Amino acid sequence: MQILIIGGAGMIGAKLARRLAQEGQLAGKTITHLTLADWVQPFAPENAPFAIKATALDVAAPGNAEKLVADRPEVIFHLAAIVSGEAETDFDKGYRTNLDGTRMLFEAIRRVGHGYRPRVVFTSSIAVFGAPFPDAIPDDFFHTPLTSYGTQKAISELLLSDYTRRGFMDGVGIRLPTVCVRPGKPNLAASGFFSNIIREPLTGHEAVLPVAEDVRHWHASPRTAVGFLIHAAGLDGVALGPRRNLTMPGLSVTVGEQIAALGKVAGKAVVARIRRQPDETIMRIVAGWPRNFAPERALELGFRADPSFKEIIRIHIEDELGGTWVK
Amino acid sequence: MQILIIGGAGMIGAKLARRLAQEGQLAGKTITHLTLADWVQPFAPENAPFAIKATALDVAAPGNAEKLVADRPEVIFHLAAIVSGEAETDFDKGYRTNLDGTRMLFEAIRRVGHGYRPRVVFTSSIAVFGAPFPDAIPDDFFHTPLTSYGTQKAISELLLSDYTRRGFMDGVGIRLPTVCVRPGKPNLAASGFFSNIIREPLTGHEAVLPVAEDVRHWHASPRTAVGFLIHAAGLDGVALGPRRNLTMPGLSVTVGEQIAALGKVAGKAVVARIRRQPDETIMRIVAGWPRNFAPERALELGFRADPSFKEIIRIHIEDELGGTWVK
Repeated sequence: MQILIIGGAGMIGAKLARRLAQEGQLAGKTITHLTLADWVQPFAPENAPFAIKATALDVAAPGNAEKLVADRPEVIFHLAAIVSGEAETDFDKGYRTNLDGTRMLFEAIRRVGHGYRPRVVFTSSIAVFGAPFPDAIPDDFFHTPLTSYGTQKAISELLLSDYTRRGFMDGVGIRLPTVCVRPGKPNLAASGFFSNIIREPLTGHEAVLPVAEDVRHWHASPRTAVGFLIHAAGLDGVALGPRRNLTMPGLSVTVGEQIAALGKVAGKAVVARIRRQPDETIMRIVAGWPRNFAPERALELGFRADPSFKEIIRIHIEDELGGTWVK
Repeated sequence: MQILIIGGAGMIGAKLARRLAQEGQLAGKTITHLTLADWVQPFAPENAPFAIKATALDVAAPGNAEKLVADRPEVIFHLAAIVSGEAETDFDKGYRTNLDGTRMLFEAIRRVGHGYRPRVVFTSSIAVFGAPFPDAIPDDFFHTPLTSYGTQKAISELLLSDYTRRGFMDGVGIRLPTVCVRPGKPNLAASGFFSNIIREPLTGHEAVLPVAEDVRHWHASPRTAVGFLIHAAGLDGVALGPRRNLTMPGLSVTVGEQIAALGKVAGKAVVARIRRQPDETIMRIVAGWPRNFAPERALELGFRADPSFKEIIRIHIEDELGGTWVK
């Protein structure tokens, strides 16, 4: 089986590639080739039992999507996107990558023809939803995004459904929760604190908490997010029917519950490294974000959230910190 | 006030132009210029108290949208679309006109800049919804279109909201009910019979009814549909907020209720001209269509459905048949 990951240099794309290299198979089929593509050169995982090609290119530039699908990969993971903040500050760049890039990929798949109909797993976002929300957003809630990023993801979902319904491909869109604990350095993303308050204290650094402890949000560990992608690749398309975009299950917890879990897993001294410094701007942004969902359809299809925030922290310590932390 | 109607040669566009010519004003402002644009040359209404320019052009061809907005019309009605059946048979043409054409218009508006922020009234469609449905579709129900046309309309709604939120224009999208009684000749559209069974018997012709009398559907007269466009042009954009796309109120009636109303308005001899000839294909298509909505938001904003199907028939007789029919 040939697999293509577009966005293979990103955090989730790289973790997915490593997981595929470990498992050697996907949806019950042995992997023979993996192509990783991204704006920047992706790193190929080591010791994979299959051939890997890593290529740097812009999928939204004419002709590149055609090159990527010319070998007719059976499964395509389309993860590439300009992130929310950048899509908001650079309107044209966001539409070019997040809308035109996705549409060009789908068009390139369609134009291969001759019965080519790959499974396309597309990472959408809960940013397709915009406040005000019900307490738990149901699967049939409408899309009223309040960012250009969310708009581009919602449009891509519609294209995915239509290209699938017309028989050009076999798409599944999955709306990932906020990925937490996100590895790497603190960044200026408004959502960064959800990860910062766990990741930084565990390595002995101070973290700033800009919101109140009763702020509730929707989380998945990177390991669980990668598991969603793999599970989506193996879903029965016929059983799925025409409604191809799914809200993934997440763990709905408050910041207070995050901190309590950190205390239980890592101890009081670690928690003491969190400094409260309220930020009105971040509080206002976060107030417009979804807090909780009722993702019944995804649960019926076998997607499972992380069981607890303690487990999310343990996964971070195991996968990113070699099993230990600064006490 | 300058006004632009794109799709000015269509049935609704032509009726809107005539109504504006009669009223001479829109949203409390005197109309000074009206431009009608369409693929084919639109007819300018007679005796208008303002200047009219009618132009044939393809809004999806490069440069044309820019030409249309160069005079900075304050209100733009964007009604132009490839119809549902053609968008399904010609995939590329549907996307080119219904998606790219709309996006090019919004982009052209954005690029005028210098504070230009016109009210854009866009006709969307209940085809953004796809079965299965609840008994009455609420305003917050999700969009899972089952046609490429519905997909293109749903995407255009998302673009309209985002371009409005970003301050590039001041858009309102309205999802029209099925327009009934549609004037003109019977056509092969699957929905044609809803109008045919009223229009043809009233002029002494036989009409074929291909479905059972318990089929329920969502209707608005052409006069009411034009009224929706005019009301949308005058809505307070600030009060509307970021949710810019609205399901219009319609009249939810069964085919049996349509026929009973025809009998009451026009007599038994007219009703006798309806011939039952069940058509499995049409029955199957119609089964996937929305039947009823709960358009609370539009009602709060002052949009009003036709009061009864008898009234819809009377409007047809008055507006299209000079007040009389073949008894």
